[in-house]
Amino acid sequence: MNDADDDDLLTATRSEPGEVGLVEPHDFATAEPFIFDNGQAIPGFTLRYETYGRLNAARDNAILICHALSGDHHCAGIHSLNDRKPGWWNNLIGPGKAVDTNQFFVLCANVIGGCQGSSGPSSVDPRTGKPYGITFPAVTIRDMVRTQKLWLDSLGIKSLYAVIGGSMGGMQVLQWGIEYPAFVKRMLAMATTAREGAQAIAFNEVGRQAIIQDPEWNHGYYPKSGGPRVGLAIARMMAHITYLSDASMDRKFGRKTIQAKPKGLDAATDVSELSMEGIDPVTPPIAFNVQFEVESYLRYQGQSFINRFDANSYLYITRALDQFDLASAHGSLEQAFAPVVGTTLVVGFTSDWLFPPEQNRAIALALLRAGKQVSYAELSTDLGHDSFLLESPQLYDLVRGFLR
Amino acid sequence: MNDADDDDLLTATRSEPGEVGLVEPHDFATAEPFIFDNGQAIPGFTLRYETYGRLNAARDNAILICHALSGDHHCAGIHSLNDRKPGWWNNLIGPGKAVDTNQFFVLCANVIGGCQGSSGPSSVDPRTGKPYGITFPAVTIRDMVRTQKLWLDSLGIKSLYAVIGGSMGGMQVLQWGIEYPAFVKRMLAMATTAREGAQAIAFNEVGRQAIIQDPEWNHGYYPKSGGPRVGLAIARMMAHITYLSDASMDRKFGRKTIQAKPKGLDAATDVSELSMEGIDPVTPPIAFNVQFEVESYLRYQGQSFINRFDANSYLYITRALDQFDLASAHGSLEQAFAPVVGTTLVVGFTSDWLFPPEQNRAIALALLRAGKQVSYAELSTDLGHDSFLLESPQLYDLVRGFLR
Repeated sequence: MNDADDDDLLTATRSEPGEVGLVEPHDFATAEPFIFDNGQAIPGFTLRYETYGRLNAARDNAILICHALSGDHHCAGIHSLNDRKPGWWNNLIGPGKAVDTNQFFVLCANVIGGCQGSSGPSSVDPRTGKPYGITFPAVTIRDMVRTQKLWLDSLGIKSLYAVIGGSMGGMQVLQWGIEYPAFVKRMLAMATTAREGAQAIAFNEVGRQAIIQDPEWNHGYYPKSGGPRVGLAIARMMAHITYLSDASMDRKFGRKTIQAKPKGLDAATDVSELSMEGIDPVTPPIAFNVQFEVESYLRYQGQSFINRFDANSYLYITRALDQFDLASAHGSLEQAFAPVVGTTLVVGFTSDWLFPPEQNRAIALALLRAGKQVSYAELSTDLGHDSFLLESPQLYDLVRGFLR
Repeated sequence: MNDADDDDLLTATRSEPGEVGLVEPHDFATAEPFIFDNGQAIPGFTLRYETYGRLNAARDNAILICHALSGDHHCAGIHSLNDRKPGWWNNLIGPGKAVDTNQFFVLCANVIGGCQGSSGPSSVDPRTGKPYGITFPAVTIRDMVRTQKLWLDSLGIKSLYAVIGGSMGGMQVLQWGIEYPAFVKRMLAMATTAREGAQAIAFNEVGRQAIIQDPEWNHGYYPKSGGPRVGLAIARMMAHITYLSDASMDRKFGRKTIQAKPKGLDAATDVSELSMEGIDPVTPPIAFNVQFEVESYLRYQGQSFINRFDANSYLYITRALDQFDLASAHGSLEQAFAPVVGTTLVVGFTSDWLFPPEQNRAIALALLRAGKQVSYAELSTDLGHDSFLLESPQLYDLVRGFLR
């Protein structure tokens, strides 16, 4: 695609109905101390957020979007007219879209512990004038939800028409329904779980070890160095595989090589190296250079992630995921859901092997057993865990129907 | 289990029929240059191997066992009377077992490129007096098979009653049938593939990056340092997850913690650290210490691996896996199997998500289409890829039946 095409596309996007268009982030900052689930406190905090659409006079049309591990508050619209990458859920949110900003006031905040403007390990501790680093208190999903409630209160929002999220966002959705039942009219949780299982913990742990064992991590690293960029890239490359599926990777990449090779030769010979820019330059022997497209893709994913994400936030947020177990926190999943007032839609995706359909079904089943209003939908897809983020008319119809 | 119990067990094991008992490795060493698939040569090589049972007068009762990525030549018996860990396929191989050493002469060699006594990157290059390091030629599955053939020739073995292997061992089995069709009477390939797919390549690539980007790797590292122990441990931890299954990990570990915690507290508090011994000591903040049993298990797997495996061999052998694509090498899978003479049994395992049943079925189907004698069995198990290594009366019956 050449520049002229790009401009055309952008102009079209800007003028067409259906796009949120230009947006800018805002900060909610409080000087009230916040006490985390583990008992530790910080002297105030900030949540960075965005909103789309307008709060109505009755203040009852607000929809909260909760983001996943590596997401942020920027879930729709663009930040500048040259911005070619809209927010991460731009396909779902906008005027006339499934989450219709002509009708709803849509909000999304970067989670506490994050690194996109909300308070987290990379923020400055006002008591020391230095970044918190690993003195930032351990964060839980419930901490994320409780800080979001303080922020929504500050905006004068009296109830949520709906709270919507996938993956870690779905965990927050469930926690919202339990923590502030009267506040939440509708809960829409996708590709999620009520209990982080052993395999998911295991993948998180390998990512954390890659970061912590990187010499540049240096016990939390601020402000000494650029941080454990290699470790974070490794963590992201691995995690990224768990968001896809065998079938989707095979369709997208298969065994395609970066450069076609005469048969019989070592296919690695004379393949140019795609460096991990910003990482200490290492020249691997030619046979270990990028050879397959899937390798180049993963290296790119690792590389772009280290430019936008803080390694300590990655440690904190993966630990919040690991800690999430509603049944154990409340005796049983039915007991956990006992306070729920609103109606819930749970959506599982057949090819999601990180939080497989069974785990989503278990949420719906427990809500049902607890006597709550709940529907469960299972969408057939071969796109893996990331299915909830991708173009899907079936999903749009479900969301639209649920919000009607 | 106390020492007395151990001794009883050992005594019982030694005296009971059914055990191979004490074994010792041997070396096949040749000073003939070997030319690898990529055209590079080394001036001779060594394969370390073991044998169990006796070659009969007709020399037609030999069964070759091929090992997987992290396996070696020691697949049955014990190395000393105090050896508590028998060879990796000891449950399958022995007098009266499925691969009956009363009847068969069983052999297994460490692959070329390996690090358990066979020539590989950690071996000394006689031309320089220094370890090959990354000057060792790139290795393919076909190179593994061709070096094994030279070794079997040296033993005067005229044909193989069977060749048996799982995972990368299964790839060698297929390659044997194609490369030396008249030599191989029976092929038994389990939990394998005829074509390394994008997801498997992706996991291999993350492991390689963890190793190569470790500063201690240092472009191949011999003899400078102990090598990229951190990177190799990370690679192994991640790979180990792919050998198991969500269900088996959940059953074995679930969310069990290392030490029970009062509810509501950050469960990480006061958990003692299980260090990665031998790795530069890092004291992670308390919240990132081992907390779940699955974390401790994975760290142990990483730790024990770096004490027995060479990081450069890991790079070489994973690249051999990535390169494996019989269809592309021969035009189609049917064409690849055209030369096959012997009869084949392919075994897939329902919960294997590294080389799933479809990929095993595809091998059997292609053999069938090529007009060959082949059976396919799919075993129901929830133990993941490693199912082929584990206790399984169904598998034993299949193997026994196939060898009859």
